[in-house]
Amino acid sequence: MSEANASATRITPGNALRPEDIALQEAAPDHAVAQYALWLGDDALILAQRLGWWISRAPELEEDVALANIALDQIGHARSFLTYAGRAWGRTEDDLAYFRREPEFRSVHLVEQPNGDFARTIARQLIVALYQWELYSRLVHSTDATLAAIAAKAVKEVDYHRDHSIQWVLRLALGTDESRRRMIAGLTLTGPYIDELFTDYPLIDELGDAGVRPSSLRAPFDAALQAVLGEAELELPAVPGAVGGGRLGRHSEHLGYILAELQVLAREHPGASW
Amino acid sequence: MSEANASATRITPGNALRPEDIALQEAAPDHAVAQYALWLGDDALILAQRLGWWISRAPELEEDVALANIALDQIGHARSFLTYAGRAWGRTEDDLAYFRREPEFRSVHLVEQPNGDFARTIARQLIVALYQWELYSRLVHSTDATLAAIAAKAVKEVDYHRDHSIQWVLRLALGTDESRRRMIAGLTLTGPYIDELFTDYPLIDELGDAGVRPSSLRAPFDAALQAVLGEAELELPAVPGAVGGGRLGRHSEHLGYILAELQVLAREHPGASW
Repeated sequence: MSEANASATRITPGNALRPEDIALQEAAPDHAVAQYALWLGDDALILAQRLGWWISRAPELEEDVALANIALDQIGHARSFLTYAGRAWGRTEDDLAYFRREPEFRSVHLVEQPNGDFARTIARQLIVALYQWELYSRLVHSTDATLAAIAAKAVKEVDYHRDHSIQWVLRLALGTDESRRRMIAGLTLTGPYIDELFTDYPLIDELGDAGVRPSSLRAPFDAALQAVLGEAELELPAVPGAVGGGRLGRHSEHLGYILAELQVLAREHPGASW
Repeated sequence: MSEANASATRITPGNALRPEDIALQEAAPDHAVAQYALWLGDDALILAQRLGWWISRAPELEEDVALANIALDQIGHARSFLTYAGRAWGRTEDDLAYFRREPEFRSVHLVEQPNGDFARTIARQLIVALYQWELYSRLVHSTDATLAAIAAKAVKEVDYHRDHSIQWVLRLALGTDESRRRMIAGLTLTGPYIDELFTDYPLIDELGDAGVRPSSLRAPFDAALQAVLGEAELELPAVPGAVGGGRLGRHSEHLGYILAELQVLAREHPGASW
């Protein structure tokens, strides 16, 4: 059983960065930092829901384990970011996860995208992992000590996610004609959701050096993506960007269904001890 | 990211008991040991599928993490047992998981039971964890070194599962009227599937000291269960036992649906590199 679960069942202490510790900190984030923490926490939370679907559906038992572990890592990041954000408003991680309405979520459209077949999930996972790695590897220098600490733990885990997705992209792209065809189709469906990741909203100016300017991540992200695609003998399909707006609470039709699944039990029994 | 995933993505070595190592061993199990490994592996595999459903549906984010980790542990045990069983017939863990038909599965009816509400899942989890702990803590003395080694790793993880389920049974039984009512209902629905766990089929005689006689686990299991129920101020409802037969390949109507979900991707692309 992993450290994450030991924490979840409150059996062992350890782990200096647990959401429980963040909840007990003296300092609460200011409004801008809290909003920013929502961005990152919601991305991780919604991605985890999508990945969790694979737990009994992956093409190999080994892969079941790998995708479920990535989902667990993302839930861990979400818990930390949401716990910290919630301290600005006196709300818990569970309040924020289960009792916000759809327009209050701040996740990007990329993480809402359907799993599709396995290749489409891997395409989404490649984009997310490359993006999160560029982001978190800079957020460790945030002037906000809590964001920096969350990022320092997350970037190590995302480094594995990145390796995992790259290995699968190569295996599918350089495998059979059918797997290559599916990998290309997955990238074509995912490509339109890349631009939104690098949009600078006004919140970024308020944050100063507490956050990372999304547009500053574009060049290193593109370089990293091109390196993978080159090795896989692929090109990013030329598709127009989708309309974004997730950071403003404007979501695609998919998010409602994800939230229905995520929130149903907590909402059926609001305030119950279980 | 946990050790399990590091292994799954083949990034780190470590972990002396990986399915990959079992697959490379010189010794193959004899027919009886292989059948027995199927019993234990199928129990773990089917339970993992049921638990994986909760990954985006638990009542707390923390609990999402806990149940997903338990599911991952069970997949890990299943992979080890199925890899070992498969060596008797030249088949891989994935062959056995994805390409057997329903009557070839050897899991007990308990693990096929629906998740129901959270209390019903916890009731099933309590029974499974108490049973697996009694079983694995004796299987470490098996005369079959591989079964003993798998059990030695599994029993440590199942010890956490046991604590987890006991904590939830107490919390629900001693919580609100509603949570207590649901806990009792969960136990009532789960009780009929206990007897099957302790049935001695002829295979047990063939196994000798390589296996553990199921009937020998009944008394310690009952004592452990009574201790938990006593603390929770509950009684095991007096319900008649269900017809078993899982070890003979006779399953309830539930298993077909579970296998459909588990096997669809692998069967759609048999032999494909993904």
